Amino acid sequence: MIHDQHHYHTLIEEAIHQYRMPQQPAGLYDPVRYAMDCGGKRMRPILCMAMCEALGGKAQDAINQALAIEMFHNFTLLHDDVMDSADMRRGRPTVHVRWDDRTAILSGDAMLSMATELVNEGVDASTAASCRRLLYRTAMEVYEGQQYDMDFENRDDVTVDDYLNMIRLKTSVLIGCACRMGAIVAGADEDVQHQTYRFGELLGLAFQLRDDYLDTYGDPIMFGKEIGGDIVNDKKTWFLINAMAEDQSGVIKSELSLPSEPRHKIQRVKEVYDNLGLPERCGELIERYISEAKQCVARLQLVPADANFFTELAGKSSTRTQ
Amino acid sequence: MIHDQHHYHTLIEEAIHQYRMPQQPAGLYDPVRYAMDCGGKRMRPILCMAMCEALGGKAQDAINQALAIEMFHNFTLLHDDVMDSADMRRGRPTVHVRWDDRTAILSGDAMLSMATELVNEGVDASTAASCRRLLYRTAMEVYEGQQYDMDFENRDDVTVDDYLNMIRLKTSVLIGCACRMGAIVAGADEDVQHQTYRFGELLGLAFQLRDDYLDTYGDPIMFGKEIGGDIVNDKKTWFLINAMAEDQSGVIKSELSLPSEPRHKIQRVKEVYDNLGLPERCGELIERYISEAKQCVARLQLVPADANFFTELAGKSSTRTQ
Repeated sequence: MIHDQHHYHTLIEEAIHQYRMPQQPAGLYDPVRYAMDCGGKRMRPILCMAMCEALGGKAQDAINQALAIEMFHNFTLLHDDVMDSADMRRGRPTVHVRWDDRTAILSGDAMLSMATELVNEGVDASTAASCRRLLYRTAMEVYEGQQYDMDFENRDDVTVDDYLNMIRLKTSVLIGCACRMGAIVAGADEDVQHQTYRFGELLGLAFQLRDDYLDTYGDPIMFGKEIGGDIVNDKKTWFLINAMAEDQSGVIKSELSLPSEPRHKIQRVKEVYDNLGLPERCGELIERYISEAKQCVARLQLVPADANFFTELAGKSSTRTQ
Repeated sequence: MIHDQHHYHTLIEEAIHQYRMPQQPAGLYDPVRYAMDCGGKRMRPILCMAMCEALGGKAQDAINQALAIEMFHNFTLLHDDVMDSADMRRGRPTVHVRWDDRTAILSGDAMLSMATELVNEGVDASTAASCRRLLYRTAMEVYEGQQYDMDFENRDDVTVDDYLNMIRLKTSVLIGCACRMGAIVAGADEDVQHQTYRFGELLGLAFQLRDDYLDTYGDPIMFGKEIGGDIVNDKKTWFLINAMAEDQSGVIKSELSLPSEPRHKIQRVKEVYDNLGLPERCGELIERYISEAKQCVARLQLVPADANFFTELAGKSSTRTQ
């Protein structure tokens, strides 16, 4: 029987707080503490523990696996921020800005090692092997997704399918992994595991598409950052890739080669998106993912309150404003 | 019963060659292939398999563990070369030069994940757990060593003990880990494991000190690179740290604050080293490590031919010229 999100959030925050690292060398471990103490939503560990409890396990049984996934997630952010030269994350300077690039690289390496060790802990050997293999497969997919994302910057032939596959790898599979790992610890069978994985994967796809949507159509106050950043940076989002293929007006081509002043560029590109009906079509695609995700939950045959936990979470990710 | 080095070298090269990776995305996997196909000495996997056979196992039983350690080693080189901005390695451009920094970071991450997965493979669950934990503890120590190495650049109070502990962490523990992992796969008991680990650790210390020696006193043709690079770069080697503490002439202080022209600087600093008797003292320290390493081998009570394999290897590392 499932608790509320707040319960799992408290559990994972405690686990992060209690995780013991040496004090020295401070240059290695301080950035790890900084990165983990980030005030994130903790969506992945919450899903992992909630899925475990919904399927008959105890949250505490999956706490090391939940922490491993959160650690892995934050490791990817650390290295991605170096690779993308991102200066801010969750309102704070990123590790490579606060310290430097090589600190971010080395502390990230340590987090990856800690994550791959943690995933084996607190469960029997056969469960540990399943969890370990799942995290490994997922990690390789996440790296592939990041590589495709970087490749896309210099490619003009990226299709919508390429893009959806990229965000699936870069973002969604780790959410699928979190759900499935909860199911594994609960001792669920292969079919149940598969449904939980697919649920997380679809949730991740909806979440990322909603992110693309909010970057152009969000409320700047709710979204917490300026609107139109993706447009200004020619980021190959679902919107731009569709518009590159469909725009007959020449606006997209002209803005990509000879961009006008940022505010004007955002307005012109947004007009193209509007004329092509992209915001509505994006909303429809998100709805399709969410509806499929809810079917996965239905197939799990949970008690109604537990099913609600996941379907509500799915619903929220399609309508979130921040 | 042990084979010759060439036999294990062939085995590990075959294992590297046969290790399957996806073709796409090429930007992720090509640098991994490039890094692994480096013509290295393969000292760690050779030691791992030889130790396994000396203690009654078969080399092939430890092949995944040997490959895991070689993969881990090459991952650290990839990331170290980014952190140290090193352009060349083993006569070829480093990955971050041939591709770019972010490729080196991401492909290194993939290698670390592959190494931590490989270390579990081809052995029973309990052996896998021991191997995995050993590689994890070793990895954390290697990161600590790299962090101390970077910290030392900006510190003037580094002692010889600090330095020896740093090279132990950065270099030696992985060689100890390679030996001990071979012993674990062979089913050796805790005391035997400990002796093999200590043997590798001492070998690593001797090896690294010999490296410091050769950088100043080597034959440039045998050593394969210009002599005096450490002096020119004020690298805090065993020599410089001792000289900083003992030099009364003021030469070291003056060359650190107001360096003369490189060739002149090398000559002046070398003179201080000579006057302090540092080359002889370094040689004595290396000999002490090697002699202790040989005692570890003696305690293993191997058949004479097998004991020779390891004592000869230790002897060579103290007198090597390249």
